[in-house]
This record gives sequence, structure tokens and C-alpha cells, in this order.
Amino acid sequence: MASTPASASVEKLDLDPAFALHRGGKIEIRSTVPVRDADDLSLAYTPGVARVCTAIAETPALVHDYTWVSRVVAVVSDGTAVLGLGDIGPSAAMPVMEGKALLFKEFANVDAVPLCLDCTDVDALVETVVRLAPSFGGINLEDISAPRCFEIEARLRDLLDIPVFHDDQHGTAIVVLAALQNAARLTGRPLGDLRAVVAGAGASGVAVTRILLEAGIGDIAVSDSKGMIYEGREGLNPFKEALARDTNRAGHTGSTEEALADADVFVGLSGSTVSEQAIASMAKDAIVFALSNPTPEVHPEVAARHASVVATGRSDFPNQINNVLAFPGVFRGALDVRASTITENMKVAAAGALAGVVGDDLAPAYVIPSPFDDRVAPAVTAAVAAQARADGVARI
Amino acid sequence: MASTPASASVEKLDLDPAFALHRGGKIEIRSTVPVRDADDLSLAYTPGVARVCTAIAETPALVHDYTWVSRVVAVVSDGTAVLGLGDIGPSAAMPVMEGKALLFKEFANVDAVPLCLDCTDVDALVETVVRLAPSFGGINLEDISAPRCFEIEARLRDLLDIPVFHDDQHGTAIVVLAALQNAARLTGRPLGDLRAVVAGAGASGVAVTRILLEAGIGDIAVSDSKGMIYEGREGLNPFKEALARDTNRAGHTGSTEEALADADVFVGLSGSTVSEQAIASMAKDAIVFALSNPTPEVHPEVAARHASVVATGRSDFPNQINNVLAFPGVFRGALDVRASTITENMKVAAAGALAGVVGDDLAPAYVIPSPFDDRVAPAVTAAVAAQARADGVARI
Repeated sequence: MASTPASASVEKLDLDPAFALHRGGKIEIRSTVPVRDADDLSLAYTPGVARVCTAIAETPALVHDYTWVSRVVAVVSDGTAVLGLGDIGPSAAMPVMEGKALLFKEFANVDAVPLCLDCTDVDALVETVVRLAPSFGGINLEDISAPRCFEIEARLRDLLDIPVFHDDQHGTAIVVLAALQNAARLTGRPLGDLRAVVAGAGASGVAVTRILLEAGIGDIAVSDSKGMIYEGREGLNPFKEALARDTNRAGHTGSTEEALADADVFVGLSGSTVSEQAIASMAKDAIVFALSNPTPEVHPEVAARHASVVATGRSDFPNQINNVLAFPGVFRGALDVRASTITENMKVAAAGALAGVVGDDLAPAYVIPSPFDDRVAPAVTAAVAAQARADGVARI
Repeated sequence: MASTPASASVEKLDLDPAFALHRGGKIEIRSTVPVRDADDLSLAYTPGVARVCTAIAETPALVHDYTWVSRVVAVVSDGTAVLGLGDIGPSAAMPVMEGKALLFKEFANVDAVPLCLDCTDVDALVETVVRLAPSFGGINLEDISAPRCFEIEARLRDLLDIPVFHDDQHGTAIVVLAALQNAARLTGRPLGDLRAVVAGAGASGVAVTRILLEAGIGDIAVSDSKGMIYEGREGLNPFKEALARDTNRAGHTGSTEEALADADVFVGLSGSTVSEQAIASMAKDAIVFALSNPTPEVHPEVAARHASVVATGRSDFPNQINNVLAFPGVFRGALDVRASTITENMKVAAAGALAGVVGDDLAPAYVIPSPFDDRVAPAVTAAVAAQARADGVARI
């Protein structure tokens, strides 16, 4: 092959180890049955396969026993909110979705197929995923911009009888809840006594708020780029209006920093910054989760001057809040029992299991396990499967 | 897990080796890069992946270098014409599509993802595949009923800049042309001298007719369930009207059997039967391809009493016309040069390469190689890639 300008540029890019590792992609399809001769072919393909098709046509549930459907998840994105990069489109989103498939496989042996869709209209996205659904045991939505992501997930959950899970929302929410449970335990307070401020009302901010409410947090107030969200604030979208109704019992109407005075917990999911002064104004034994990546809302070493527990989204500081702690085990557990959905209880159970892995080793720099702790996925899997049974959504 | 009625029925079904082999499916996703520690994670996922995404957003063609897109094919079906089983729907079609993915991998190392879609409307199918296209290097359409399949393929070929190939049409056409070239060589006649009758005007009948016309066959007449197709026949759909214009120079207006008198070639793709008498009425050195499965239009041993060359679709008789001889190499060759489409020339080149594998071993019982001849896929791959370059549709 002659060297083209494109291949020259590839050679240069490959000097970056991230590019070199990505060359040719990160996943492949492998056969799990042999096709060595005509006998194999007559079983795996025609004529043998026709008997399997006929059996499924007569008894649809057999598709789970005789195909890969019940163990494969679609990782679906429209590329509108990729990492911190924003709306970069479906092709540029593919390395992330393929990476997600890689992590599903490596961390919980879940087969996952990256599907980057060339459509951003909510109706179109919903109908496309519904059409694809017979091929999958679950749908992991990824990097879809807010507030579109809320409606897309809600409609798909109504329309489909397989798990639908927007990881940017619920993966983050589960890990934050787990870390907060341990931070509360470490500082000797029940969750119900804590007053929290969440900066950010995008996908993760909304989901974190919802799971903390579900888990019985004392009070929680949420801010967006215009300040605190409260009932009656002008120009709130319906999702923020609902948040305003369910949060902010203290009635904060100013800035995030003002609301932090005397707060017990700060969860940053905003990409903005918070001053040391505001962190210093928090209550005793403050808990600071500065989760924006790559730049936390407040530098963790600065936060540590004033807070008892500090977590970030980064692997180079203690207490990394990383979604990979949640989504592989959540789907593994849901698929193992052929759950028809992922309930709120299942998410809370996942958080509890994740918190439980820390056990007696709990310390300020260890409120959440490492992503490479091999107890994590089995613990989350077992908790999610058991809760699916308890909630009556397991089908085996 | 308690034994349920479903699991009891599965145990019974598994006594059939085809079911036992299908348990749990036939393919899986595998990682091609390691994720052993935080360093690996920071390259394969955040933050390293963000640099790759950014590069693709700036230079879209890089998606082929840094993701699996350029080596993965979607095997897309709506389940409307599965094998000889008919419209059994997307779930029951999955074992066939998964089998196809298995064969892609085993025969030509093409990664393929089975996608069975829950929609049968032509517009809906087309728009769904267009939305999925950024995730794939090619689209293999499969088991979509005629005449819908013609419009779906034609529209997708227009709309997409990646190969779109309806295997039921073109896979069969390529293998039939290869076998016919060798049968003509064996019986000492150029293709241009042969008069053929094709029984069946579904997906494969139409495509076989088109490729034989492309390859310069002398004359060809096509029949459907109502008899021969000719200009002016009542109630022809647009696809059959076009066939009527381009075929049947001899003006046959009766039955398939009547048209066979003095014909050189019979290609059965109809599921109906043809009498021994009709086969006996064919010209000297007749060539009979009775391809319906599992029951050929005429039993191959009966046909052999009157014909010089006989082929079927079955593995238990000589000269099996099996699509697996074509589609893996066709896509491998197209993907290897990032072809923007699969041209008619590329299909004809695939047939020539396939015929060429037989070489000097040509014999009445050997006009087409075995699917397990490991020279086949490389020969087809090389021919398709070279022809793509010659046709100006290769992009590397």
C-alpha cells in the first residue's frame, strides 16, 4: 500500500500511546462454536439452524437459550455529549462506545456492541432503539445530551421489556451514593442527617440527586450555570422544575458557593469551579466530591484542608468515582436473571454492595474501592440480581 | 436456579445436537487490548480516548484507523424471509443471523454483528440502517422478502458510502455464475452460446438472472409461480416488468417445463418441482442446478440421467452451491480496500476467482470448490479488492 497523507498522519499520531493502543479498534467478534467441516456447518447453519429458528418462532422465550441475545448489550450513543467534548457526532464518539464495550467484557464478561447512531431527534432515537431491541438483552445509553437523555430513557423504559440504563446518569449516581454512604459512616452520621449541594443539573447531576433522595438524604439543593434551582425560578425546563419541587427545602436562591455555607456534602458535576473559601464555609466533617474531569471543581488537595473526605473523578487521587465500578456488574446481574428492567431499588442495591466492598478498611482516602478490585463486579452482580428477584422483575 | 417448564423444555430440545450447539449462542465479543491496571484504563478509556475522539472529529476518515468500524459488518434482517421458513420475525431469525456472523469470522476473519430489526416497512428499514451506518464498514442484508429487498438494497446503496450487499441475491448469484462458468468450460461452450431457464423470480432468481446477463449469457428466461415472465404479462410488479424487458428473447409464455425444451441450463430457485421428462427435453450436455433446499426441484440423481453437470444446494451431493463460498471473501476484499460500494464488476470478479480455484481438477462432480477449501476466501478477497481498485471505489 502506498503511503498516503492519511497513513503518514496515522504514523505520527501513533507516537501517542493512546492512539497506538486504539489502532484497529479495541474489540472483535469471536466464534464460540467450531465450524471445521460440513457436519459442523449443518448444525451451526443450514439445515440445523432452521430447527432452532422454528422452535423460537413457536416459543419466543427460547431466543434467550439459543442465541447470544440474553448476554449482549447495545451501547447506544448519538455522540451529542461525549465525555467533556460535547456534540462531536457518531463517528467521533465510537472510540468511547467501543471502550465501553471493552470494559463491559473485561470487568463483568458482558458482551456489548457499540452503536453510534446518525440521528439526534428524540423520536428518531427512540424508534431506532425499539427496532433494534430484539437483538439485545439490554440497552446502555451513553453520552446523550441533557435534557434529551431523560425523555429518551424514560420512553425506552416504557416501551421495552429489557433493561435500559443511561450510564452517565445512573452509573455515576450509584458510585456517588456508595461513596457517600461510606463517607457518612466514616464521619459517624446517618445519610438522613446530611445536607448536600449538587453543582450541575445535567444527566449525572439529576440522577445523583434522584438516587440520594431515594436513599433518604436529609436535604439536597441543586445548582445549574445560573445558580441554585428553586421553585418559581424563571425559565426552568420541565426536568429542572421537577427537581425544584423535590429539592432545596432550605430555599437557597443564590449561587452554589453561597449554598455551601454550613452544607455537609458537596457533589460537583458541573465543570465549573468552587473557591477554597466556599469549601471552608462548609460544616464540620465536610464531604467534597469534586467530580469534573479532567479539572475538578476544587483541587482535591485544597479541599482536603477543610473537608474530612474528598473524592474526584481522577485516577491519580484517592477515592476515584468511576462508573466502571457500577455498570458492568449492574448489567451482569440484570442479564443473569433476565430482568425486564432496572428498578430504583436495584440501583440502590448496587450502591450498597459497592460500599460494602470497602468494609472494615474504611478510611478518608478509601471510601470507594478501586476499579481493579476484583470483588467489585461479583458483589454488584449478586446484589442487583437478588434485588431484581425481590422486585419481581427477574424472569429466571 | 429452580427447574422451570422452560428449562425442562430446553433440556429436551438439547437432545438434538443442533440445539445443543446453539445453547448460549454462537459468537461473543472479545477484547483486543489489555485493561489490567489504571495505566491501561487511562489509554483505552478516559482520559486517553478523548484525544482519539478529538482527532476523529477533526479528520473523520481516522475512524477507520482507530476503531473497529472498518472491519465490522452489520448482518441486518427483518426476519421476513428466513431460509425456507418465511416470515418468522426478528427474534426467530436471530440464530441464522448469528450463524452468518459466525461464518464471516470463521471463513474470512470479518467481524459481523447480527441485527434483527423489529420493523418491516421499507422506509423504516432504510432509515434505520442509515442511522446505524456510522458504526459499520459494510451492511450485509439477509433474509428480507422480495420484492421489498430490491428497493431496500437499491435505496441503501444510493444513500450510503459503504458496501451494501443482500446476500440472498448476490451471494447466490456469484456462486451460480462461478459454477456455470466451469460447467460451460467443462462442456466446451462459451457462456454466450448458452440458453438458460431460471425458475424463481424472488431475491436469488432476480440476482442470478442479472449477473448472468452481466456475464454475457446467450439468452435467459425466468419463471415465477404463474409461469414464464414475458413482456405484456398481466400483473407483473415493476421488478418483474424490468426482467421481462431484459430477458426471454425466445418469447416463452408457457410453463417452466415447456421452456426447458432444448434449453442448455436450468437454474432452480423456486421451491417447486420439475419433472424428469422436462429435464430430458433439454439440449445435449445440459446443465442442471436444482438449488432449492432441502428439496431440490429435481432429485440430482434423476437429473444426472440426462444432464452433464448437476449441482444442488445440499452438502450431501456433489457441487454444492453455498453462499459461504462468496460472502466472506467479498466483504473481506471490500473492507480491505475500504470500498465505498460493491460494483457489478466486483461480483463478477468474485465469481471468476471462485471458478478459478477449481482449475485443472474440473470434472462433472467438481465445478465448484468445497466451502472448506481454504483457497476460496483468499482468492475471492484478492479478486474483489483488485476489482474495487480497478473500478475506482477503493479508498486505500
